[in-house]
Amino acid sequence: MKFILDAVDPSGARAGRLILPHGEIETPAFMPVGTQGSVKAMTNEELVDIGTGIILANAYHLYLRPGIEVIEKAGGLHAFMRWDRSILSDSGGFQIFSLASLNKVTEKGVEFQSHLDGSKHFITPESAIDIQRAIGADIIMCLDECTPHPVNHDAAAESMRMTLQWAKRSKERWETRPDGDQSLFGIVQGSVYEDLRVESVEGTVGIGFPGYAIGGVSVGESKEEMYRVVEWCAPRLPEDKPRYLMGVGPPDDFLEAIGRGVDMFDCVMPTRNARNGTLFTSRGKVNIKNARYKDDFEALDPACPSPVTTQYSPAYLSHLYRAGEILALRLNTLHNLYFMLNLAATCRKAILEGRFSEFKRTFLARYLVSNGQA
Amino acid sequence: MKFILDAVDPSGARAGRLILPHGEIETPAFMPVGTQGSVKAMTNEELVDIGTGIILANAYHLYLRPGIEVIEKAGGLHAFMRWDRSILSDSGGFQIFSLASLNKVTEKGVEFQSHLDGSKHFITPESAIDIQRAIGADIIMCLDECTPHPVNHDAAAESMRMTLQWAKRSKERWETRPDGDQSLFGIVQGSVYEDLRVESVEGTVGIGFPGYAIGGVSVGESKEEMYRVVEWCAPRLPEDKPRYLMGVGPPDDFLEAIGRGVDMFDCVMPTRNARNGTLFTSRGKVNIKNARYKDDFEALDPACPSPVTTQYSPAYLSHLYRAGEILALRLNTLHNLYFMLNLAATCRKAILEGRFSEFKRTFLARYLVSNGQA
Repeated sequence: MKFILDAVDPSGARAGRLILPHGEIETPAFMPVGTQGSVKAMTNEELVDIGTGIILANAYHLYLRPGIEVIEKAGGLHAFMRWDRSILSDSGGFQIFSLASLNKVTEKGVEFQSHLDGSKHFITPESAIDIQRAIGADIIMCLDECTPHPVNHDAAAESMRMTLQWAKRSKERWETRPDGDQSLFGIVQGSVYEDLRVESVEGTVGIGFPGYAIGGVSVGESKEEMYRVVEWCAPRLPEDKPRYLMGVGPPDDFLEAIGRGVDMFDCVMPTRNARNGTLFTSRGKVNIKNARYKDDFEALDPACPSPVTTQYSPAYLSHLYRAGEILALRLNTLHNLYFMLNLAATCRKAILEGRFSEFKRTFLARYLVSNGQA
Repeated sequence: MKFILDAVDPSGARAGRLILPHGEIETPAFMPVGTQGSVKAMTNEELVDIGTGIILANAYHLYLRPGIEVIEKAGGLHAFMRWDRSILSDSGGFQIFSLASLNKVTEKGVEFQSHLDGSKHFITPESAIDIQRAIGADIIMCLDECTPHPVNHDAAAESMRMTLQWAKRSKERWETRPDGDQSLFGIVQGSVYEDLRVESVEGTVGIGFPGYAIGGVSVGESKEEMYRVVEWCAPRLPEDKPRYLMGVGPPDDFLEAIGRGVDMFDCVMPTRNARNGTLFTSRGKVNIKNARYKDDFEALDPACPSPVTTQYSPAYLSHLYRAGEILALRLNTLHNLYFMLNLAATCRKAILEGRFSEFKRTFLARYLVSNGQA
């Protein structure tokens, strides 16, 4: 993996390129989430059409179903799902703590029960690397403990330090089989405590990884707390390595974090909102179930060249959703992902032209006011 | 509308072309069902890619939701759903009798309660034409009474004769506004009684339509009864007009009816089966949920050039279905529709080459034996 920093905007926002085995990713990058080996409701062709360069997959889900043997037999996840662009696999830390039940954490690893069938499993930092080797993603993640929110300082400190130990062991395991085509990212933890975040950044950078993630956000903290966490971490991370904010975010958080020096993002919200009938527009979120759209034939968002809203009327999208048509989920998802990828590309352009702060201000003024957030 | 008969095979199977305002349809033709203004799980682009020339829409459903005013405001169903190939709209007769509740039939028309909200509606042969004018399909259907199965001879006779009266009134209404771009088909009824079917054919042909449908099948009668109904009706219908067997069918019924001189078909089974995990193959139906497919990486049907099964393994399709992914519904639907359209094209070729009987025998030998039907 190579990371090229093309420009740093006066604001601190960065434009870069990530050269991975399956292609080049321009940053800031939004990664659609394909938890179970499929970005919900999308085909690979559609993802490529809207400019997706990298998707996220989840080791926890794939380990439980279809199982690592099946993915190995397929020749890895790329071959299994026929996706020939890049993949980042999450280690499963977050999912073990949010989805699985009865999880028991020790220094050695974490024991948990499958959310699918209650079966018991034990995953260690080492086995998380082995699982992700089999999945074969371009970027893989260290197993981390994701603390809930709120958590007190002592518990957050203890957990963060264990995550640091796990990061060291993850790197050691990763180095035992240096096949050269996967890059392991470390994850910064420390909840909403500045001293812990700083300690975590220093410890993780001390171990040394090709890229760094800021984890433990989007777990219930406020937007302002999340922005502060990014402000503590991002500037302390090496300038020449990519920075990935995990599980973020809605368009406003996306812009705020880019403005604080983050390069990579993933979030289920664009796809999940889509399936609930919520569409992203430049004037905020729109609920297509709203009665006003029933016979509305004006373009939903004239400012957005989305392949969905330039082609289909709000009336038709509203009808499809009300009628329970699968096409509603498809078109809504395609639209929201297009919106995020287009927003990322627009941010990149603004950064390259040194006018990110102005772009952000203009965008948010329209987006947040209409959204009732400002 | 123009119908050109290209060839009649020694078996009686016909190959023709239907020239409609939105394009030319080769027959035998399979029409994917887009009940509510969307072929479930498909986009227009995908339908075009697999060679769909005409889809079916349902006046009953569209009348109830989104309502005819919305479709009129859109400029008709073609514009509403952005489909620029042909559409056939069913009058809603079948749905009123199968979906709606408390329906009360008189000579004047039928009163029914919406299956959506219980609201009361009254539809006449005349208003069914008006509704279909607004929808704007290329082919529209007379309102008919679809008798249940089994039904005694007297009731079937009475119902069939009323359908004949309704057909006369439908044609009269249709002729009051001869805008020239919609073709009205008559529907033959008469349940499983030969004398009634013959009387219905003669009466309907006596009124005179650009095309004829055989209705009242796929309502619970046996396959053999259905084949007999087709044998009674098809040869008595004018040779120079298209013949449409409504609601049929699975691949075997499709071939049997083509062999008896039918030109057009629609059926929800390929799409509905797909959503239940059942895929059509040349060796019969396959349930992708079967455990044997979990780690099967061999092509599902080497004999079928489906864009789905040539690209994705049974193991991946099985995983998607088990994981509840929307992509499973998409790919399964795309596959089954491709299978039916490809089968129709293969039948046409065999008819043009005068070897339909042999093709049918070979196909069914493999299909039915593997399917456990023979």
